[in-house]
Amino acid sequence: MPIPPIQKLSSAIVGRHGIFDIVRHEIEGADGPRVYVTLAMPDWVSIAAVTADGRIVLVQQYRHGVDGVTLETPGGIVDEGESPELSGRRELREETGYASRELESLGWVHPNPAVQNNRCHLFLARNAEAAGLPAPDEDEHTEPSVLTPSEVRAAMSDGRITHALSIVTLERALARLGAP
Amino acid sequence: MPIPPIQKLSSAIVGRHGIFDIVRHEIEGADGPRVYVTLAMPDWVSIAAVTADGRIVLVQQYRHGVDGVTLETPGGIVDEGESPELSGRRELREETGYASRELESLGWVHPNPAVQNNRCHLFLARNAEAAGLPAPDEDEHTEPSVLTPSEVRAAMSDGRITHALSIVTLERALARLGAP
Repeated sequence: MPIPPIQKLSSAIVGRHGIFDIVRHEIEGADGPRVYVTLAMPDWVSIAAVTADGRIVLVQQYRHGVDGVTLETPGGIVDEGESPELSGRRELREETGYASRELESLGWVHPNPAVQNNRCHLFLARNAEAAGLPAPDEDEHTEPSVLTPSEVRAAMSDGRITHALSIVTLERALARLGAP
Repeated sequence: MPIPPIQKLSSAIVGRHGIFDIVRHEIEGADGPRVYVTLAMPDWVSIAAVTADGRIVLVQQYRHGVDGVTLETPGGIVDEGESPELSGRRELREETGYASRELESLGWVHPNPAVQNNRCHLFLARNAEAAGLPAPDEDEHTEPSVLTPSEVRAAMSDGRITHALSIVTLERALARLGAP
């Protein structure tokens, strides 16, 4: 049986919170109108950066959502007018101090198609080199953490890397690199 | 350099939207107080169900966030008082009509530690069997889609499966099953 189409009656932004807007939708349900909310968010980018000697550049930072320090792939928001690749190079540089001009697409994913409209674009950045200190946004503190592929695999297994988007990025990057 | 601790001044729920609350935080920034928002969400669950003959049970459903039909692992919200394993069995049955009593943990991930506080618990459900019709929530329409491991890999490569949490679940399940 095919999935029946949704009949949308209206959509309106009912809250603006900087990194996301709240959108209220009214649809025609089986028993009359029904309301649901979604989150309108800009696209994101996530980068697996690999050095010339094959190590992966990750970032440690405080994350408000979980109120703690995480170990993740560098990444962030694709700013308006920016390409995902440019955002990826910018975020890598800002968050870790590493730079790469060799970004390869690893595709994209939906972080959460149930509630969010946005995509996260994934990249492999080859020949990443330390180019200076991290320069994150005001009041953000980030530290690079450079791991071998086997250390990355261990960190994904033992709960040091928990971010789903980082895990998808790293799995695709390790497969592309042919890392065991 | 270690990541400096965050000094939180206050936290308050400023919006309730059913599947999430909006929480406003005030922290002590370098140049005075600063505000940010997070999303308080219940934990989620995502299930890779495998039949006795080694095929994977996925679900097709309309998703409001992306305003379209997706192909995903069954899953959903861990209801209050429910264990993640019980939620997993319930969501598998409701969304696909398949049942399994053999759930194995594949760990958990943070869907988005930057903004959300919740975890997504991942399971492999072995010996899943068709037990009836899907019985989703009111106004939801879901259809099971049963694929071989190689068809699942193809769907993750060609953009038919785009949900990051489904991809992490399926990668871990295929690795656990020893599927090539």
